[in-house]
Amino acid sequence: MAWKRSHHCAELTTENMGEEVILNGWVDTRRDLGGVIFIDLRDRYGITQIVFKETDESLHSKAEQLRTEYVIGIKGTVKKRGEENINDELSTGGIEIDVNDLTIYSEAETTPFEIKDDIETGEDLRLEYRYLDLRRNELQQNMIMRSDFYQSTRSYFYENDFLEVETPVLMKSTPEGARDYLVPSRVNPGRFFALPQSPQTYKQLLMVSGFDRYFQIVKCFRDEDLRADRQPEFTQIDVEMSFVDEEDVMESTEGLMQKLMADTIDEQVKAPFERMTYEEAMRTYGTDKPDTRFGLEFTDFSDLVENSDFNIFANTVQDGGAVLGITVPDQGDMGRGAIDRLTERVQDETGAAGLIYIKLNEDDGVKCSVGKFLDDSTVDAMVDRADADMGDLVLILAGASPDVYKQMGQLRLMMGNEHDLIDEEAYEFLWVTDFPLVEWSREDQRYHALHHPFTSPKMNQLDLLDDDPASVNSRAYDLVLNGYEIGGGSIRIHDRELQTRMFDLLGIDEEEAEKRFGFLLEAFKYGAPPHGGIALGVDRIVMILADESSLRDVIAFPKNKKAQSTMDNSPDFVDQEQLDELHIELKHYAEKAAQEE
Amino acid sequence: MAWKRSHHCAELTTENMGEEVILNGWVDTRRDLGGVIFIDLRDRYGITQIVFKETDESLHSKAEQLRTEYVIGIKGTVKKRGEENINDELSTGGIEIDVNDLTIYSEAETTPFEIKDDIETGEDLRLEYRYLDLRRNELQQNMIMRSDFYQSTRSYFYENDFLEVETPVLMKSTPEGARDYLVPSRVNPGRFFALPQSPQTYKQLLMVSGFDRYFQIVKCFRDEDLRADRQPEFTQIDVEMSFVDEEDVMESTEGLMQKLMADTIDEQVKAPFERMTYEEAMRTYGTDKPDTRFGLEFTDFSDLVENSDFNIFANTVQDGGAVLGITVPDQGDMGRGAIDRLTERVQDETGAAGLIYIKLNEDDGVKCSVGKFLDDSTVDAMVDRADADMGDLVLILAGASPDVYKQMGQLRLMMGNEHDLIDEEAYEFLWVTDFPLVEWSREDQRYHALHHPFTSPKMNQLDLLDDDPASVNSRAYDLVLNGYEIGGGSIRIHDRELQTRMFDLLGIDEEEAEKRFGFLLEAFKYGAPPHGGIALGVDRIVMILADESSLRDVIAFPKNKKAQSTMDNSPDFVDQEQLDELHIELKHYAEKAAQEE
Repeated sequence: MAWKRSHHCAELTTENMGEEVILNGWVDTRRDLGGVIFIDLRDRYGITQIVFKETDESLHSKAEQLRTEYVIGIKGTVKKRGEENINDELSTGGIEIDVNDLTIYSEAETTPFEIKDDIETGEDLRLEYRYLDLRRNELQQNMIMRSDFYQSTRSYFYENDFLEVETPVLMKSTPEGARDYLVPSRVNPGRFFALPQSPQTYKQLLMVSGFDRYFQIVKCFRDEDLRADRQPEFTQIDVEMSFVDEEDVMESTEGLMQKLMADTIDEQVKAPFERMTYEEAMRTYGTDKPDTRFGLEFTDFSDLVENSDFNIFANTVQDGGAVLGITVPDQGDMGRGAIDRLTERVQDETGAAGLIYIKLNEDDGVKCSVGKFLDDSTVDAMVDRADADMGDLVLILAGASPDVYKQMGQLRLMMGNEHDLIDEEAYEFLWVTDFPLVEWSREDQRYHALHHPFTSPKMNQLDLLDDDPASVNSRAYDLVLNGYEIGGGSIRIHDRELQTRMFDLLGIDEEEAEKRFGFLLEAFKYGAPPHGGIALGVDRIVMILADESSLRDVIAFPKNKKAQSTMDNSPDFVDQEQLDELHIELKHYAEKAAQEE
Repeated sequence: MAWKRSHHCAELTTENMGEEVILNGWVDTRRDLGGVIFIDLRDRYGITQIVFKETDESLHSKAEQLRTEYVIGIKGTVKKRGEENINDELSTGGIEIDVNDLTIYSEAETTPFEIKDDIETGEDLRLEYRYLDLRRNELQQNMIMRSDFYQSTRSYFYENDFLEVETPVLMKSTPEGARDYLVPSRVNPGRFFALPQSPQTYKQLLMVSGFDRYFQIVKCFRDEDLRADRQPEFTQIDVEMSFVDEEDVMESTEGLMQKLMADTIDEQVKAPFERMTYEEAMRTYGTDKPDTRFGLEFTDFSDLVENSDFNIFANTVQDGGAVLGITVPDQGDMGRGAIDRLTERVQDETGAAGLIYIKLNEDDGVKCSVGKFLDDSTVDAMVDRADADMGDLVLILAGASPDVYKQMGQLRLMMGNEHDLIDEEAYEFLWVTDFPLVEWSREDQRYHALHHPFTSPKMNQLDLLDDDPASVNSRAYDLVLNGYEIGGGSIRIHDRELQTRMFDLLGIDEEEAEKRFGFLLEAFKYGAPPHGGIALGVDRIVMILADESSLRDVIAFPKNKKAQSTMDNSPDFVDQEQLDELHIELKHYAEKAAQEE
């Protein structure tokens, strides 16, 4: 039987002097000093020092068995520590427990890696023994923050009259662009459920049902090729509201983020957040998720160099491309070698053809790498437009549009990171708005929805929908934090006819639309309110707030980059009988793999 | 664009007289009276009466288009209703809105069924148009209560230092006894994830990690043959605590239930709840989930009739069976015909061989249906033991054990329901404890865990584990409310060796144990705390609190009895390409079904 603890391991202070207490926990460290055994006893809350003196022989000899990570319970008396042992960094640092009884709940073998922060252990080993990795203070704190994050989120929505509604996990395939995870049905041979990529259609139906304001913290699934910052299952804050416009959803989201930042990391954020159109973001930062914690906004030199003698510039601009620059402060004296290495990296990582620069330093004055092809007045005009001062370095890329913007966006991030231009303490939120509704896919030879097919076009551009759809903007908005897209949403189409036109535009013919979304189109027949919403990525936001660089550090049991959990060896092969019941069989090669197992 | 409402539809009262307001909502009903159009405008919050007078002709003629379920916005002035129209049952019943502007967001065709409570529409149609069914007040209130239920639950756990941790949905198969839903892996050919039947192993690992107290409201999945009260996916409150015994988990759960009942239906419940051993529950009520809102406890007559001349009684008892009775008040004058019909029903529904009775009424005195085989003193002794008074009816079943207990349990419920012995307003909680650890499966010729393989046996019975496992009790506890099992849990095994013995007892050999649970056994090597927990069924509890008889009335988008969602036609056939990517193919007949589609 477990001893009922009187306190946890972060609770006792000099206020409790003389009390008889019971504690439970893990042996964090053990030291033997002159026959006395000192143990730091650890639990989720903290650490308390416990002491076994030599006076009680049988107790002392029992304590001698104790090793790191043993789980024990102790009874004892709270004593003041000797002056020389007081630890001001711990809340319990002024006391220790003079133990008079000990029970060992569980012994422990030597762990495959030490339970402490900043261990140098490969991630594979850490994932295999995830339950041990989760004992480390860093991960414990991340999980505690994540728990606070949930509660803060829900309080906000409850206070604002949102209803929490659970939507199905076993559902129909949604058209979010990624691959679905499928679940064969036993009762309905040959048929499959899909796991939700998002509860998009369900939350829209909840609006049609009149629930007015919905939220849910919900697991979603995408069977994508995994990158460092993707997981097969992820968690999102899912929101939908009726009778709203863009501003209402954005305002509501800003309130949530303000509360979240205050509750989890005690950070006060100002609202409203900055807003920027997609076009401006691309033109100024070369990305739709700019990191606005630092400047280095693009300068467009195209008109200045369109008619210059430098052919690369002139041709680029005359072919519809652009010549862009960023002004890096205090790098005007960058040496030849450093610039060569940078050029190579830019070519490698961004695909840019080359890197051109203007250095401004006391020794050389203004020096342009292609100065012999440009007259001085052009270079001066460029320096002037780039707002470059003595000591600055102007980096220039020329290329086709929109590639050159993306390349320059990457170069900007490189410079920001390398030259410590980013304020790591800052949290910069940004709304990006006015996205194109659709983009042309050369591969598929049809338009794709930039967000999803339910996103409303701007109502004053409906007449362009047939003739020039690529010029139509959507009523979508993305929320960006420190250069990460942390959420996105839109005002939706709530009109059956407009929705049908949209499907048509996306090359989804009537039969296909009926088959996939007939229920939504049908629902719109019976009175649908104007509505819109947003979805926010929990894993990514918590990762940013916890100052981690991997999603795996803020998820209790993550998958590795091969979508596997090595801890419990899943996914795994299953019995033939299970497959038979599900009316499926393995393809030959997969079966062979299973048999060889 | 949506008009920004100034108020929702349950907000305005005579306090707001004269104010200019904007409302949005659905046309609930429309009446035309002497040229004036009265509309009840509905939203999630309530109803407000709006009025279109004849004075503004263009507005009036626009209002004439309005039909039930149109979605509209209006601007107008708050007016006092005429005395004769005041409706005291509505918070807004004293006012109406004199409309001066109208926008129609969405028209509506005639709905397939009327949007009102107590409609007589088949459930199939209601499920097909679930989004319309969800507009009904009854379902709206159920969803609102469910939302409150979540928040109340979470507040409780947060206040009590529990951490909310998300466990994986894509996981390894758990051994809960039911079939798993499987998810083929694209990246790992031939391998499958399983959807959790419960996060059992993960929450135990969280205890091993030192998280101390965990909770989660989590979706779980069982691919069972569907009965009226089952759904393929269901929601549970999942809890685990370290360094606890049975009492700690039960006490914590009682606190939760008290808060939930108070927050959702304003019902004050007393704690601690009643406790009863499994054995007593079976002996007294013939079930491990007795409805204790009424009496009719069993009387055991076995010893009284063991040596009687009535062979059926004597043989039954001598063969190890039992003769049981229940005393139904005020039915002592039940007529011959009624008793015959009851006998037939008991035979049909419970499988009992026959029904014997003793009637006590003023006309006949004490009359036993098998009186001619029993001497009067035996009958008198039975009446005495059954505590039967004049006017009562004693119903008696004789049969093999344990079947006769189950049969009598069913008969007891029948009587309770039919003769209004159940207090429908009552909420009777009951803990059932001291379950057998295992039961013998004749079919499998091995022991099965009554709860699951991680449930700890009573520590003082460990020596019986090898020689007489069927006599060992577990440290499990079930929570019963009004005859429904609403939750169950246990103190778990946290010792590697004992867990291995348990697997062995259940016929899971070393290799199999290693393959399925190796990670848990491995985890126990590194210091596992004593721990235990519980899982509570959200759907069922909400169903009871909402006074509904079907789970489908408290789930937003439920599946029907064939595990289908007819609304969006899922599960559905998928493209061959998707199957190819997942390395599976359909069995021939399933493929044929898909092709014929």
